[in-house]
Amino acid sequence: MAASFGVCRLRFRSLGGFDRFYLGLETQTQRRLTSTISAIKAQAGNNTVTKAKENKTFQAIQEERREQAERSVLISCPPKFNENKFLDYLSKHGTINKHFFYSSYGTYAVVEFSSEESISSLKESTHLPAVEHEAAVPFKSRLLSLKWPGNQMNNQPMPTFQEQSPPSIGDISQLLSEKDSIDEQLQCLTEALQLTEKNINLRFLVCSLLGDIAGAYFPECIIRPFGSTVNGFGKLGCDVDMILDLDGIYATSQKKGSGLSLEYQVKRGASERAVTQSILSVIGKCVDQFGPGCVGVQNILQARCPLVRFSHQPSGFQCDLTANNRVAMKSSELLFIYGQLDPRVRHLVFSVRYWARVHSITSSIPGAWITNFSLTVLVVFFLQQRSPPILPTLDRLTELAGPSDKCVIEGNDCTIVSDLSKITLQKNTDTSAKLLQEFFEFYGNFPFNKASINIRKGKEQSKPETTALYIQNPFETTLNVSKNVNATQLERFVKLCQESAWLFQKSEILNRSSSQSAETVSPWGFSALLLPSVTSGAGVKSRRKRKLEPASSRIKTLLDSLKIKGGETVAKKGSADPSR
Amino acid sequence: MAASFGVCRLRFRSLGGFDRFYLGLETQTQRRLTSTISAIKAQAGNNTVTKAKENKTFQAIQEERREQAERSVLISCPPKFNENKFLDYLSKHGTINKHFFYSSYGTYAVVEFSSEESISSLKESTHLPAVEHEAAVPFKSRLLSLKWPGNQMNNQPMPTFQEQSPPSIGDISQLLSEKDSIDEQLQCLTEALQLTEKNINLRFLVCSLLGDIAGAYFPECIIRPFGSTVNGFGKLGCDVDMILDLDGIYATSQKKGSGLSLEYQVKRGASERAVTQSILSVIGKCVDQFGPGCVGVQNILQARCPLVRFSHQPSGFQCDLTANNRVAMKSSELLFIYGQLDPRVRHLVFSVRYWARVHSITSSIPGAWITNFSLTVLVVFFLQQRSPPILPTLDRLTELAGPSDKCVIEGNDCTIVSDLSKITLQKNTDTSAKLLQEFFEFYGNFPFNKASINIRKGKEQSKPETTALYIQNPFETTLNVSKNVNATQLERFVKLCQESAWLFQKSEILNRSSSQSAETVSPWGFSALLLPSVTSGAGVKSRRKRKLEPASSRIKTLLDSLKIKGGETVAKKGSADPSR
Repeated sequence: MAASFGVCRLRFRSLGGFDRFYLGLETQTQRRLTSTISAIKAQAGNNTVTKAKENKTFQAIQEERREQAERSVLISCPPKFNENKFLDYLSKHGTINKHFFYSSYGTYAVVEFSSEESISSLKESTHLPAVEHEAAVPFKSRLLSLKWPGNQMNNQPMPTFQEQSPPSIGDISQLLSEKDSIDEQLQCLTEALQLTEKNINLRFLVCSLLGDIAGAYFPECIIRPFGSTVNGFGKLGCDVDMILDLDGIYATSQKKGSGLSLEYQVKRGASERAVTQSILSVIGKCVDQFGPGCVGVQNILQARCPLVRFSHQPSGFQCDLTANNRVAMKSSELLFIYGQLDPRVRHLVFSVRYWARVHSITSSIPGAWITNFSLTVLVVFFLQQRSPPILPTLDRLTELAGPSDKCVIEGNDCTIVSDLSKITLQKNTDTSAKLLQEFFEFYGNFPFNKASINIRKGKEQSKPETTALYIQNPFETTLNVSKNVNATQLERFVKLCQESAWLFQKSEILNRSSSQSAETVSPWGFSALLLPSVTSGAGVKSRRKRKLEPASSRIKTLLDSLKIKGGETVAKKGSADPSR
Repeated sequence: MAASFGVCRLRFRSLGGFDRFYLGLETQTQRRLTSTISAIKAQAGNNTVTKAKENKTFQAIQEERREQAERSVLISCPPKFNENKFLDYLSKHGTINKHFFYSSYGTYAVVEFSSEESISSLKESTHLPAVEHEAAVPFKSRLLSLKWPGNQMNNQPMPTFQEQSPPSIGDISQLLSEKDSIDEQLQCLTEALQLTEKNINLRFLVCSLLGDIAGAYFPECIIRPFGSTVNGFGKLGCDVDMILDLDGIYATSQKKGSGLSLEYQVKRGASERAVTQSILSVIGKCVDQFGPGCVGVQNILQARCPLVRFSHQPSGFQCDLTANNRVAMKSSELLFIYGQLDPRVRHLVFSVRYWARVHSITSSIPGAWITNFSLTVLVVFFLQQRSPPILPTLDRLTELAGPSDKCVIEGNDCTIVSDLSKITLQKNTDTSAKLLQEFFEFYGNFPFNKASINIRKGKEQSKPETTALYIQNPFETTLNVSKNVNATQLERFVKLCQESAWLFQKSEILNRSSSQSAETVSPWGFSALLLPSVTSGAGVKSRRKRKLEPASSRIKTLLDSLKIKGGETVAKKGSADPSR
C-alpha cells in the first residue's frame, strides 16, 4: 500500500513542466512531494484554532476575524524575494500584526496591519501598472503586486509557505498508518483536513476584498462567510460561501417622529427577490469587469437562492455569494456550537464526511446525493441518541438562550444560546472509535422508511412525507434538509454503513499489525474503511468509468489529483481504483 | 400672427388632465400659460450668468460649479408645503448657501449647503422608505424625498418656481414683437433661450449625482459636463453631455524610484477602447439598477465614441455619458472663450441656431444635417472675416497662451489662452442685426464647392476632399466637423441664407409698424425670418408630413409641443404650419 503511494508520487514528479504550466502550483507541488507528511504533522500540532477561541461567542469570533481582514492586504510576490526586506518595506506604513506566505498560482503574502490607517497609507504609495495603464481598469483594491528590482532577486532565502490545500489521499493514508489507535487516527484526520487559522484568515480576507466591491454602493453592507468556513467542519480546499448582509443599511434608517422627514429616493423592485437579483447582478458584473483575480464569474440568479459564483485566483477559492440568507448563517452557528461542545463531534463529522466522499456518497456536484450538511446533522442526531447523550437537543439550546440571543427570521424562531458555558453535558466516556462504529451500526439499521431525523427534539419521529430520507431542517421546521436524496442514494449509504460496521468487527482491521514497519504497513483501522466497497454502487460506478476512459486519461487523472479542491479528486481515486 | 399664438395657447389649456397624466408637468404648464411672458422677462433681466464670471478662467468656473454641486442635494417635495419650514428643517444640518424650486414631473428643490459636512449630517437623518423597504434597492444617494405630515399641508403659500424649460415659439414671437429693434430682438432671444444660472446648477448637480455612482469604484474620477452645458451656447432643455474623467486616478499613481514598490493588481482589457466599454457598461448597469430617477438607460457601447444614455427624470434632462473625450472638453472651452469676447457672438449664435432649428436645418436626430456645433463654427468663422475682425483666429489664441495653458491631447496641440484679459480686440461697431444680415449674405454666396472653413487660420482654404461641406475640426485638424452633411442639406442651408438675406432688405420686415399695438403686431425683424420658407425643402417636408398625419395627430402635436426639450418641437411646428 505504502509502495503504491510511492509510485504515485513518482508519477506526479514525472509531469515536469505540466503542472507548472496548467496549474501554476510549482512550489506547492514540489514541496508537497518532498515534505508533505512533516508539514501536515506540524500543522496538526499547531492546531490552536478552536481551543483559543473557546471562550468567545460565535458572533464575537466572526467579528474579530472580519475586523482583522479589513486591516489586511493580499500581495502577489515575485518568485524570489527577501522576507525581512519585504517586511521592512511594509512596516513603513505601520505595525504588522501578522503575516504569512502561501503558494497558489504564484506566491502570495497575507499581511495584517494593526491599524486600518496603514491600509490607506499603503494604498497611497501604490501605483497603477505603468506601461499598459490605459488598457487597465483602474480599480484600486487591496490585492497588490510586489515589484522587486531584478538585481536584488538572487540567492534570497525563501520564506516558509503555509499550506492551503488538503493533503492527498496518499498522504492521509500514510499518516493514519503511523498511528497507534483508531482514536488517534480520527484525531489525526481531523487535524490534517481542518481549516487552519491562516486559511480562515485568507477566507475572511477574500470576503473583505469582495466587500470592498459590494460596499462601493452599499457602504453599510458586509460580506460574511457562512457554512464550512465558519461552522468548524470546513476542510481545506472547500468553497467559500458568502452572504451579502444588507441589514446594517436598514438598521440605521428607521423613521422617527411625526414631523417633517426625509427619505431616500430608491429604485423599487417587484419583490424582495427581484431586488436581490438586481443587486447580485450588479455585483456580479462589477466582480467580472473590475475584480482583480476574479475569474469565471457566473450569475446564477434564477436559482431558488440567487447567487454569484466565481473563482478567486490568488487564493484558489471557489466562491458563492448569496444574499438575504440569514437562516443559513444561523445554521452555521448551530453546527459550530455542536462542534465546540466535545472534540469527538468534530472527529466523527470529519471521519464520516471523508469516508462518504471517498465512497462517492457525497459529491461536489448537486444531485440526489446526501450533502455534507445532512451528514453532519446525522452525526449530531446520532450523538443525541447516546446513553447518556453526548449532545443536547436544539430545543435545549433554545431554552438556555438569554434575552440577547433572541432571533426570529422570517417567522422562524432561530434562538440558540450563544454562551457555551451555560451548557452542561452528561458524562459519556465512549471513545471516538467506538462512536464511529456505533454510528455505522445505527444508520445501517435505522428505519428510514418510516422515521425522520429531528435534532430539535433529539428523537426520531414519524415521516410527514414519503421522501426517501427525511431530516427536519433545524430552523425552518417544515422543510426537509435531504429532500433531494433518492432511494438509490439512501440505499448506498445504508449498505456502506452496514459494510463499515461489519469491517469494524474484524480484528485485522481493528488493530495495527505490530510486526509491520511504518513503511510497509497495510491499511488498518479507519484507513481500511476507505478501501473500495465490494457491495455498494461505487464499485459499479468505477467499472463503468474505466470503460469510458480515453487514452489520455492517465495524465488527466494525475492532473486532477493535483487540483486544489482535493476532496473531489480523492473521492474519484478512491472509487476508481479497486485494486488498491 | 399674435392671434394665432393665442389660439395655440387656448389649445394647450383645453388638454386638461392630459398633460398632467402623461407628462407630469401640471404646475409648469399651467404657470406657463398664465405668466410665461412675464417670467421670461424676469429671467432675461436676471441674466448675470456670463457677466459675473467674466474674470475667471473656464476651468475655474467649472471647478467652482462642480464644487457647489457636491455640496448640494435634490429633494422631491410634496404638492403643498411651506418654504420657510422646509428651510428651517434643513438648516439643522448647516448653513444653506442657495436654494431654488422647480417643477418637472413633480416639485423639486435644489439646496446648496455651505459645507459638504451638511450632506453627511443630512444623510444620517434620512431614512429608507419604510413599508416596502425590502423591495427597494437601498442605494443612498443625494436624491431625497421630503415627507410632510398631512395635517400641515393645507393653505401653504407656494414658493416661486424657476423655469427649466425653454419658452414656446409662441412666447418667443410675442416677446420679439414687443421689441423696438432687431438688435433688441436678438438680445432678447438670447436671454430667453440661454441656460439660467440655476439651470446650470441643476446640470452640475445631476453630473455630481452620477459621479457618486461612478465614484463608488473610481473615487478620483469626476463626471464633467461638456458641450452646450458649459460652452455658453446652451439652450434651456438641451441634453447634458458628460465625460467620465479618469485622469485623476492615473495622476496620483506615478511610479517613483528604483527600489521595492507596490502595484495594484488590475483587470486588463484588450485596448483602451475595451476598457472604456467595460467601465461604461458597469456604470450603465449601476445607473439602470440603482440610480434613483434614472430611466431608459441605453448602453451604446459599439459607437465610435461609446456612451451610456439615460433620462434623469427629476431634472427632466436627457444625459449622454462618454469617457476619455478630452478634445470635446477643449472644444467647449474654445467656444466658451469666443462667446465671452463680445456679446454679439452669443446673439448671433443663438439667433442662427434658432433660425436653423425652426427651418429644420438642424435636428435632434443624427443625420446628414448641419449640427449646432458646425453652425457655431460657421458664425465664428464669419466673425473672423469681418473688417476689422470681431473674433481672433484660433492660432492667435494659441500664441497668447501661457506655459500653464499647454495642452496636447493624443498628439494634437490643443493649447489656447485661458486668461481672456490677454486678448485684445479691434474696434468693430457693427450692430448684431447688421452682422446677422451679413451672415446670411456671406453663406448665401460662399464657394462651398471649393473652399473649406478654417477658424484656426481664420480664412477659407481649398477643400482637401470632396464632401459637400468642409469645416476643419479646430483641434483634430485632419478631421472635418461636418463630414456628415450631404449636398441636399447644404443646399437647403444656402437657399435659406439667401432667402433670409433677401427678407432683410425689405422695409416691412426691417421695421416694426408703429401704428400696430403690441397685441396685434405682425411678425417683423427676426420673427419674420422664422416664418415658413417658400423656397427651401422645409415646405416640401411639411406637405409630406401633413399627408401622413393620423387622426389623433392634433393631440399628439399638442403634447409634443409641451415636451421639455422644446427645440425640436418648435422646429416641427415652424415647418408644419405654413399658413402661419
